[in-house]
Amino acid sequence: MKKKFFTLAALSLCMTLAVAQTINLPAPNKSKKTATVMEALATRHSERAFSPQKLTDQELSDLLWAACGKNREDGKLTAPTAMNRQEIRVFVFTDSKVSEYLPQTNQLRQVATGDHRGIVAGRQEFAKSAPVSLVIVADMDKFKSNDQRAQTMVSVDAGIVCQNINIYCEAVGLVTVPRATMDHDAIRKLLGLNENQIPLLNNPVGYKAK
Amino acid sequence: MKKKFFTLAALSLCMTLAVAQTINLPAPNKSKKTATVMEALATRHSERAFSPQKLTDQELSDLLWAACGKNREDGKLTAPTAMNRQEIRVFVFTDSKVSEYLPQTNQLRQVATGDHRGIVAGRQEFAKSAPVSLVIVADMDKFKSNDQRAQTMVSVDAGIVCQNINIYCEAVGLVTVPRATMDHDAIRKLLGLNENQIPLLNNPVGYKAK
Repeated sequence: MKKKFFTLAALSLCMTLAVAQTINLPAPNKSKKTATVMEALATRHSERAFSPQKLTDQELSDLLWAACGKNREDGKLTAPTAMNRQEIRVFVFTDSKVSEYLPQTNQLRQVATGDHRGIVAGRQEFAKSAPVSLVIVADMDKFKSNDQRAQTMVSVDAGIVCQNINIYCEAVGLVTVPRATMDHDAIRKLLGLNENQIPLLNNPVGYKAK
Repeated sequence: MKKKFFTLAALSLCMTLAVAQTINLPAPNKSKKTATVMEALATRHSERAFSPQKLTDQELSDLLWAACGKNREDGKLTAPTAMNRQEIRVFVFTDSKVSEYLPQTNQLRQVATGDHRGIVAGRQEFAKSAPVSLVIVADMDKFKSNDQRAQTMVSVDAGIVCQNINIYCEAVGLVTVPRATMDHDAIRKLLGLNENQIPLLNNPVGYKAK
């Protein structure tokens, strides 16, 4: 009995450590050859069918940096935010874990293990087949209020991050679609969000289905 | 007296015609050499000091097309919108007139004559010095409701158009800053907006002050 208790305790500790794990991403490759902005805008479109091909760590790092990475020494980002509040948080769902992107340190902070892409897909099955889903959360605790004006601002800022993802994907041959549908309650619970931290959008990302 | 009346009537008619004028923009130059998406993201930043140098009609056309131009035969745009409602309208304020960009026909529909950049600048004088200010309006009449969910969606879509402007400017050596401040009441009145047509953002655009 005692042995069983310690085994369970050890297992629980291991899982907690695994969940709390923070890993360094490879540095974003800013000299990567991509399409020009005009080219990317000319072909920008949404896709809903994904190849199972996974993204490498380098590809993921470049994608997340494009979304809202640190692009200046003073800590400012590729995506502007209202009054530089940097209230947009991006969570990464893969087939094996869920992590939060930390722009200032270029790290992934693991939030959960397992495949939780289903709660991002919600009732739209296609979205589950993308190797990566990025969930865009507005953290209204970084504003002094959650009134209509603040809600508009965080929604605008979420849209800005979303378009960085859309344009970046187009420029490197990845495909994506901006979505508002998801299982909000399940996502809030899994990510440990409070009522002021609002999942607003998500982008399934991958290579186009052949 | 009668002559005076007809002179005034003719003048009034001329002014109305001038205001109703719709002009064709030069076709957007999609093969224009611009920075790559990675390069533009790496240097993306806001600027608040503008050179008085005006934009040419070609530069304005390219800028507006980047913001939310038609990029496919089926009428879809460089900027995705919720359920393809295409509810975002972009108005162009210069030193001589105010026009609405019509993405489907690549035209400018004149709304007013004169320099009205001051009501876009609001209490932030710097914004008045940009040769062009783009005002991003969400037309909620294109949704079935104006509830919280619809308001979030139009704000997201406004942010998407705004980031197209930010990234495009960075890619061609123009400068801009996304702003929420403006004289909303004066803008609504000038543009003839109803209560469901909401000015959400603006981007003063120009060359960087020397």
